[in-house]
Amino acid sequence: MNVFMAELFGTLLLVLLGCGVVANVVLKHSKAENSGWIVISLGWGFGVGIAVYAAGWVSGAHLNPAVTLGFLAIGGISAKTAAIYIAGQCVGAFLGAIVLWLAFKQHFDETTDPGLILAAFSTGAAIRNTKWNIISEAITTAVLMIGILAIFNVNNGIGAGFGPYAVGILVCTLGLCLGGNTGYAVNPARDLMPRIVHALLPIKNKGDSDWGYAIVPVVGPILGAVAGALLWQHVLIPVFTL
Amino acid sequence: MNVFMAELFGTLLLVLLGCGVVANVVLKHSKAENSGWIVISLGWGFGVGIAVYAAGWVSGAHLNPAVTLGFLAIGGISAKTAAIYIAGQCVGAFLGAIVLWLAFKQHFDETTDPGLILAAFSTGAAIRNTKWNIISEAITTAVLMIGILAIFNVNNGIGAGFGPYAVGILVCTLGLCLGGNTGYAVNPARDLMPRIVHALLPIKNKGDSDWGYAIVPVVGPILGAVAGALLWQHVLIPVFTL
Amino acid sequence: MNVFMAELFGTLLLVLLGCGVVANVVLKHSKAENSGWIVISLGWGFGVGIAVYAAGWVSGAHLNPAVTLGFLAIGGISAKTAAIYIAGQCVGAFLGAIVLWLAFKQHFDETTDPGLILAAFSTGAAIRNTKWNIISEAITTAVLMIGILAIFNVNNGIGAGFGPYAVGILVCTLGLCLGGNTGYAVNPARDLMPRIVHALLPIKNKGDSDWGYAIVPVVGPILGAVAGALLWQHVLIPVFTL
Amino acid sequence: MNVFMAELFGTLLLVLLGCGVVANVVLKHSKAENSGWIVISLGWGFGVGIAVYAAGWVSGAHLNPAVTLGFLAIGGISAKTAAIYIAGQCVGAFLGAIVLWLAFKQHFDETTDPGLILAAFSTGAAIRNTKWNIISEAITTAVLMIGILAIFNVNNGIGAGFGPYAVGILVCTLGLCLGGNTGYAVNPARDLMPRIVHALLPIKNKGDSDWGYAIVPVVGPILGAVAGALLWQHVLIPVFTL
Repeated sequence: MNVFMAELFGTLLLVLLGCGVVANVVLKHSKAENSGWIVISLGWGFGVGIAVYAAGWVSGAHLNPAVTLGFLAIGGISAKTAAIYIAGQCVGAFLGAIVLWLAFKQHFDETTDPGLILAAFSTGAAIRNTKWNIISEAITTAVLMIGILAIFNVNNGIGAGFGPYAVGILVCTLGLCLGGNTGYAVNPARDLMPRIVHALLPIKNKGDSDWGYAIVPVVGPILGAVAGALLWQHVLIPVFTL
Repeated sequence: MNVFMAELFGTLLLVLLGCGVVANVVLKHSKAENSGWIVISLGWGFGVGIAVYAAGWVSGAHLNPAVTLGFLAIGGISAKTAAIYIAGQCVGAFLGAIVLWLAFKQHFDETTDPGLILAAFSTGAAIRNTKWNIISEAITTAVLMIGILAIFNVNNGIGAGFGPYAVGILVCTLGLCLGGNTGYAVNPARDLMPRIVHALLPIKNKGDSDWGYAIVPVVGPILGAVAGALLWQHVLIPVFTL
Repeated sequence: MNVFMAELFGTLLLVLLGCGVVANVVLKHSKAENSGWIVISLGWGFGVGIAVYAAGWVSGAHLNPAVTLGFLAIGGISAKTAAIYIAGQCVGAFLGAIVLWLAFKQHFDETTDPGLILAAFSTGAAIRNTKWNIISEAITTAVLMIGILAIFNVNNGIGAGFGPYAVGILVCTLGLCLGGNTGYAVNPARDLMPRIVHALLPIKNKGDSDWGYAIVPVVGPILGAVAGALLWQHVLIPVFTL
Repeated sequence: MNVFMAELFGTLLLVLLGCGVVANVVLKHSKAENSGWIVISLGWGFGVGIAVYAAGWVSGAHLNPAVTLGFLAIGGISAKTAAIYIAGQCVGAFLGAIVLWLAFKQHFDETTDPGLILAAFSTGAAIRNTKWNIISEAITTAVLMIGILAIFNVNNGIGAGFGPYAVGILVCTLGLCLGGNTGYAVNPARDLMPRIVHALLPIKNKGDSDWGYAIVPVVGPILGAVAGALLWQHVLIPVFTL
């Protein structure tokens, strides 16, 4: 129950702040309108960092089903606990998207471009192609997973005081360096649950929720996180510690 | 007396640097004119961090009546001490706005848009609506309060060496992610006292001080900080530590 | 001798990187041309941080005559040692400006606006007025001095591992929040010595070195640093520790 | 073998993220297109930081032949081990450029300007001149080498928890302050190996790989790193510790 709630609340914060920065930059009349990729990358990254401060000391703050499945693949979590984590993450992402909508309610109402409204909830590819979009998401999420395992490698001796922002800077870096192709979902809960909220909420001027794309930010991140975790744990660590 | 002075001086620095970055970006002929939301968010955030270095070791550096009331709501401070804190914060914010005006005196004189002059002192909503503006301020301040409690949670073991900038990055994140709707006052003293200074100072080209809006950045932050503190202390902590 | 050399080399790095970021942003054909105030503020700030890593463990890394005089005013350094520090700072700033010129030699050659060429060496006010410019420089440098004393206050327990970047972020914040009026010299050596180098070097298309302004970034920072140090040590510390 | 693999994998990450941020900013239809020098500098810097987290605890994370030769010049590594390091770095940079291409495959296909395609792999000078370009690269790399030696100087007591990002901020600063003339390769492997990949891959619309420039980002960084290492170890350290 405690890890369920920690994952729930951490992912709520992650989605509120992460989707928040996109809303802040794309919605009409926002004072941060069109403030660019640097704002989006730093906001997403540090937003994740804050969510990790809130939940990390309880559950380790996966806040991402792909990361949980990555840990499952290398025996870092049991299947049953992983299911609890993922359930918490999904509920939290759902609630976070609702709070986001309340925070920017008037700006959602004033925005007339349905694409921008959806962008504040879920990702979309700059150039749509299921295969290549999944490859991009998988590569970016593999770097996320490996980055987490690397940063918290016991030899780096990083503590809980700086660790959350160290992960935040990692997420920020993914946005800056690898995010412009698919919008770096790298997290199935972060993308799918807000998409469901987008479909359910009575948002003025909204269009469809683009379900045709919804598979990409679920499958790509899971493939990448599992591959990255296996590569780190079963290839790199054994060779690094020869 | 020592905590009164620490809150006073810390809030003076907070307002000087925080309102300073807005002045730097919006006032005419500033070399930083129109340098955008990233400058405002980073400047406000790190400015708060520096103020926390100055005052934190004495008073804990609330520097914000909403935060003090949040701590009061969960028994982290007595009512009498809270009153001393808030008095110090208000005097400090008042003095900080005066020093700010001196630092940018010529640029205030050269700026002809009364809205930009007021923006360097106090916040205003992008889309005016008392109810929704209060909701936005409350949500953002709840994240501020929870973020402070989370970062300094004893299990995170964060120290005074990095703690002030950790809070600074939190404030920066609020600006990046949730600040474009109301300009994220998240602090009654930071908004109300500079507004009074704006009304009193003989600023060329200034317009009215927009008293009709002044209630929002007082009520919203207090509601949010108290709700956030109660949620963390009486809902999340009990569940997290089951 | 060791502190002389540490101050010399540290200030060389400080001017190379700090004036470097201005050159990078203003000189013709630079890939960073017109990249804005965020680049200048972050570059200056982190550049100071790197200089402090290099010199701090030897001399404490003042790298700034105003800061040295601030410490002198509160008995943190002897007059004789202060003179050695300032001598090292001036030689270092002189050499740093020469290395800067070599690094951007072709871009200096291609730039035809004499104002931009001078800007890469020395500061100038957005609105020229000796009195108000000195006030602005003094306020900003007072925050610098107080910020240094606050960050390294023994109660904050900050170490040499993060301390240099903590100061770097302080300088970054000064630029973001208070730098657009006079260009935040906040350091007589950083401004005067490169101005002399500007006068001496055979730079194509250069104009005069604007000696009429040269007094401002010497007097303002010294006044501010001394006032800030006295305020912190003889007013705030006694009250904070009542 | 373990250091070979650590240098290989670390440099793979470094090139994937570092060249990645350039691709993200310059390639057509990227959501981060034209997001500017701040994105490039922060992305490159923090990308290096993440690579150092991954490899640093195994090999010390040189990830750069110039840095390895700098350490060789001052006896910090044997010639034989240096050769292993450099071999790992070159293979890693080669592989990193291939993964980069896969991550942005569609954007490479849609980009029609051959100069932008090459820019995502290798650097080029803003103003072409072999002598001055080498001087610029040498100066910037000397600051990199000295910065690394300074940051990890035992007296600064920096640990593996923050050290990697401390280096990342150093690289970020080099970009912000000294990068606009030649694009700050500062690393022969980072430039030469992606250039070879550019020549080999079947990229639509690519032009030539500009071999006439390829010598600059090999020779300049090596000269600078060796000179910087010698200056620090044999001039500054002896004087600093008199």
